[in-house]
Amino acid sequence: MKVVIVGGVAGGMSAATRLRRLNEDAQIVVFERGAHVSFANCGLPYYAGGVIDDRDALLLQTPASLAARFALDVRVRTEVTSIDPAARTVTVRDLTTGAETVETYDELILSPGASPIVPDLPGVERALVLRDVEDVDRLVAALDAQAATKDAAHVPARTAVIVGAGFIGIELAENLRRRGLDVTVVELADQVLGPLDPEMAAPVADELRANGVRLELGNEVTAIGADDVTLGDGGTVPADVVVMAIGVRPEAALAVAAGIATGTRGGIAVDESMRTSADHVYAVGDAVEKIDAVSGRSGLVPLANPANRQGRLVADVISGLSVRPRPVVGTAIVGAFSLMAAAVGWNEKRLRADGRPYRAIHTHPQSHAGYYPGAQGMSLKLLVDPETDAILGAQGVGGEGVDKRIDVIATAMVGGITASELADLELAYAPQFGSAKDPVNMLGYVADNLRVGTAATIQWHELSAALDAGATLVDVRTPAEFAAGSIPGAVNVELDALRSRAGELPEGELIVHCHVGQRGHTAARILRQLGREVRNLDGGYRTWAAGAARTDALV
Amino acid sequence: MKVVIVGGVAGGMSAATRLRRLNEDAQIVVFERGAHVSFANCGLPYYAGGVIDDRDALLLQTPASLAARFALDVRVRTEVTSIDPAARTVTVRDLTTGAETVETYDELILSPGASPIVPDLPGVERALVLRDVEDVDRLVAALDAQAATKDAAHVPARTAVIVGAGFIGIELAENLRRRGLDVTVVELADQVLGPLDPEMAAPVADELRANGVRLELGNEVTAIGADDVTLGDGGTVPADVVVMAIGVRPEAALAVAAGIATGTRGGIAVDESMRTSADHVYAVGDAVEKIDAVSGRSGLVPLANPANRQGRLVADVISGLSVRPRPVVGTAIVGAFSLMAAAVGWNEKRLRADGRPYRAIHTHPQSHAGYYPGAQGMSLKLLVDPETDAILGAQGVGGEGVDKRIDVIATAMVGGITASELADLELAYAPQFGSAKDPVNMLGYVADNLRVGTAATIQWHELSAALDAGATLVDVRTPAEFAAGSIPGAVNVELDALRSRAGELPEGELIVHCHVGQRGHTAARILRQLGREVRNLDGGYRTWAAGAARTDALV
Repeated sequence: MKVVIVGGVAGGMSAATRLRRLNEDAQIVVFERGAHVSFANCGLPYYAGGVIDDRDALLLQTPASLAARFALDVRVRTEVTSIDPAARTVTVRDLTTGAETVETYDELILSPGASPIVPDLPGVERALVLRDVEDVDRLVAALDAQAATKDAAHVPARTAVIVGAGFIGIELAENLRRRGLDVTVVELADQVLGPLDPEMAAPVADELRANGVRLELGNEVTAIGADDVTLGDGGTVPADVVVMAIGVRPEAALAVAAGIATGTRGGIAVDESMRTSADHVYAVGDAVEKIDAVSGRSGLVPLANPANRQGRLVADVISGLSVRPRPVVGTAIVGAFSLMAAAVGWNEKRLRADGRPYRAIHTHPQSHAGYYPGAQGMSLKLLVDPETDAILGAQGVGGEGVDKRIDVIATAMVGGITASELADLELAYAPQFGSAKDPVNMLGYVADNLRVGTAATIQWHELSAALDAGATLVDVRTPAEFAAGSIPGAVNVELDALRSRAGELPEGELIVHCHVGQRGHTAARILRQLGREVRNLDGGYRTWAAGAARTDALV
Repeated sequence: MKVVIVGGVAGGMSAATRLRRLNEDAQIVVFERGAHVSFANCGLPYYAGGVIDDRDALLLQTPASLAARFALDVRVRTEVTSIDPAARTVTVRDLTTGAETVETYDELILSPGASPIVPDLPGVERALVLRDVEDVDRLVAALDAQAATKDAAHVPARTAVIVGAGFIGIELAENLRRRGLDVTVVELADQVLGPLDPEMAAPVADELRANGVRLELGNEVTAIGADDVTLGDGGTVPADVVVMAIGVRPEAALAVAAGIATGTRGGIAVDESMRTSADHVYAVGDAVEKIDAVSGRSGLVPLANPANRQGRLVADVISGLSVRPRPVVGTAIVGAFSLMAAAVGWNEKRLRADGRPYRAIHTHPQSHAGYYPGAQGMSLKLLVDPETDAILGAQGVGGEGVDKRIDVIATAMVGGITASELADLELAYAPQFGSAKDPVNMLGYVADNLRVGTAATIQWHELSAALDAGATLVDVRTPAEFAAGSIPGAVNVELDALRSRAGELPEGELIVHCHVGQRGHTAARILRQLGREVRNLDGGYRTWAAGAARTDALV
C-alpha cells in the first residue's frame, strides 16, 4: 500500500505516524510545500515575542527524524500541484528545482490546512502573516530591522499594526508588546475576540489596553503606507510592521481543481470517515468542513485538536479499523497578558442570529476558595437550551482556572450532561485548587433554578427596555458598594434589610441585582414569596458593567 | 413548617440556606455542637501553617450573619442528645449552661459529619485531632507553646508526629514543616495516600522527604509519651505535638439511638432523597452512606462536595421539588508542597481486592506543550473496564494541571464517556495551557489501542514474573538514557535502530519499554508486525521505578 499525504503539519503528520504504527509495510510519502514539517504553529507568536527563545523548539520533528523513527518519506519544499483521482496520481513540483514529477498513490490524504486571509488593500504586499516558520522568520527579521527600503541602517521596528483582534491577533499583540513595540490592533467588529460575546470579551479589551495595546474597534485598515496604515475613519497609525490576522480560509483549491466537492463554507466536504467525494481521497484538518455538535451542520473549525484527531482517525480508516463519528464542539482558548479567555460551543450572538432559543447564565466566581490566598476572579457564561436543558456553549475569561472550567463543560457537552446536572459534578476540591461548590457546580445550580422556575433572570442587554417599560431596579448591595458605582435609576435596599423594607418598593415589576448575581438571587426569592413579580439581573453589576455600560452590540 | 437541622457545616448549612430561599415562611433551626458554623474545615491545616493568617477567614458565616441574611435560627454550642421520631421531637442540651430542652420539628435533617478516629493508645489523651476551629485553636496553641506540664516556660513546639499519611496527614505535614517543625508521619500502610496506588503515591512520598518530612511507612504508634511516641518497631520519635489523622468515622450514634437504620459501613442509611428509615428524618454529608458510582453499592465518602450537594438536595426534597439520584465518584485532591495528587473512582488495589477485571494505563505527560517554557511533569493513571471500556477510576500526581485532568475524567465518568472516547475530547489548547493532544486525549489513545488490540501492555508489578518465565526485556531508549539507569536484565536496542537490529533479539516473548511508554508503543508495533510476541511495559521506566523498584505491595 502506498499512501501519499499532502501537508506535513498536525493532521497530516498525525496520519502519517499512526499509519506507520498500524502498517509497517506501507509506503508513506508526505509532501510539504513549506520548509518544515510538524512544527509548533501555535507557538509562533511566542517565538516572535521571545517567550520561546530557541527556534529549534518549534521544530518538533524533521524529515530525518521521521525517517529514522517512522520510516516516512517526507519531502519538504515540495508542492502537490494537481490530483488525478481517476489515475490515482498527483503531480508534484520540487520548489527548489522547479522539476515536476508524477507520483502514484493507493490512498491520498489531503491535509493542506488553511491560509491567512489577506485582503486586497493598497500596499498590502508589505503586510506579514503568521502561519508557518518561514512567516515567523520574516516577522522576526522585520522586527529586528526595518526594511532597507526605508532606511539603510539597522533600526528595530518601533510600531506595529495588527489587523484583526482574534486569537492570533491578540497573541501577537501581547508578544509584540513584550518586545517593547507600540502596538495597535485594528478590528472591524466593535469587540475583540469574536468567538466570545461582547460582555465576555470586554475584560480582554481592558487587559490589552492596560498593557499598552491601542485598540481600534469598529475600524478597519483601508491602505498600508510605507510606515503607517490608514484607517477607515481617515486616521493614520504608525506601522513599521503590519500583520494581517483577520482569519483563515481553507486551502481547498487543489481539491476543487480535481473535482472534489466542497461544502457550504468553502471547505473540503468529507464524511465521518474523512472520505472526500473522490474515491481513495481523504481530507483532514483546517481544510475540511466538520460537523458542529450543537447544530449538526457542517462548518469550519480551524483548531489543532480536531486536526490531530482527524489525522489519526483517517489512518485508522485506511487501516480498516472502525471509527466513531466525532462532531466538534470547538473548544478554544487564548492568553492575553494575565488573563485567559476560552470558549466552547455556540455563543449568544450566534444563537440569536440563528433564531435558536436559549438561556444565558453569567457568574463571576473565584478560581479557588476565597478564604485561601491567591484566588483569582473569573467570569463564566453558560448558554442552555430552554427546552432540553442541554448545554449549547460556554465562555470564560479571567485568571487561572478558566481553562479547567471550560474543559469540564466541553466534556459535559460531549457526555450529554445537562446544564442542571453540572451541579452534580464532583470536581477535585482542596482550597488551593477549587471550591466545595466549584464554579461549574454553581452554573449548574443557577441552570437548575431557571429550569425549575425558582429563579427568573433578565440579561444585561434587556435591562434598559424593561426599565423603560416601568420596572423598578433594586440594587441589593451594601450602601458602600452602591456608592462606588451603580446602574442609573437603581434604588438601593441592602439584602439584609430587604425583608423589613420590602414594603417601601413601588408596585409593578421589580428587577433586583447585586454585584455578581448571588445576593440578587436571594433577594428575588424573598420578593417572589412576598408576591412580587421579580427578575434577577443575570451576572449582576459586573456583567452589566462589562456589557450594557460600554456597548449596545446585542441590543 | 418547622425544620430542625443537626450540624451547621457543609451539608447542614447548604440545606438551611437553600430551604430558606425556597420557603420564606419556614421556621429553620440549626443546632451546632461546636462554637462555629459554616467554617472552612478544608482550610484548617493551612491556618495551622500560617498560609491563611487571618482566623476570621475560616469563619465564612456567623449565627448573626445567617440570621440577617437568611432568617435562620442558628444555635452554636448546642447539642442534640436524642431524637424521638414518633413524637417528632429532639432533646437539646445547651453546652454552656447544661440546660436541656425539647424541640419539636416537622422535618429533621441530620448533618452531624464524621469524627476523627482516635485509637485507644497509652497516652492518647495528649493527641490532637483536626476537625473544627476549636481543634485548630488547640493545635496552634500547642505549636506556639509546649504544654506547661513539661516546661513552665513558653517554648514553641519543635517536633511533631502525625499519625496517618492520608489527605489531612499530608496537609498537616506540609504546614507544620512550613512552621519549621521536625515532622514525622507514621503510617501503617507501606505507602502514603491510600486512595492512590503505590506507584502513584511514590512521588508524593519523595516530595515529602525532599521537604524534610520523615516518613515511617509500614509502622505504627503504639504509645504516646510526654515528649515522644513509641513505634511498633520499638523505636521512638520526639513529639512535642501529636496529631491523629488516621481517618474518620460517621457520627451515627444519635441516629442509631433513635432506631434509625445504618448501612454496612456504619453510616446512616439513606435513600436517593436522603430519607432515613424514620419518617420525616433526613440525613446528609459525611455521616451517611452514599451510592458508589462504580459499584452501585453504598459506602462512605467523606468529602465536601457531596455533602454540600446533598444538603441542597434534601432542601429540594422537603420543598417538594423533584431530585435526581446522584451516585458518587469520589473526586479528591491534595496538595503536597509543589505537587498535587488527585483521584477519582476506584484504584487498582480496590479493583484487585474486589476481583473486578480492569486495564491499567500509566502516562507521564507534560502539563502543557513541551516547546513552551515552564511545562511541569505529571503522572496519570487510568483504570478501565475491559468488557465495556468504561472508566473505573483515575489518579494523577504532579505539578500544575493534574486537577484539570482529573476533573475532566470525573466529568467523563459521569457522562458515560468511555476510556477510548477520551481521545475525542476537545480540550482548550494554547501552548501555555495544554497540548493539541492533551494528556487526557493521550490516555484515550492508549485505551483505544488496548481495546482494539493494536497494543498489549504489561504492568510494572507483572514484570518480574514475566522475566522469570523467560521473556526478554528490551529497553528502546537511547544508550545515554540506558546508562543513566535501567531495569535489571534489560538489553538496550534504541528505537530508531530497531528495524535493522530486530533480528538480534532472542526468540520467545519480548517486553519492550522506554522512559514513559510512548516509544515503547512504537517499538511494540514494529516487532508485532515482524511476527514477534511483544508487550509494552505500561508507563515505561518511570512507572517501574516508582513501583517495582521500591515496593512489592501489589505483587
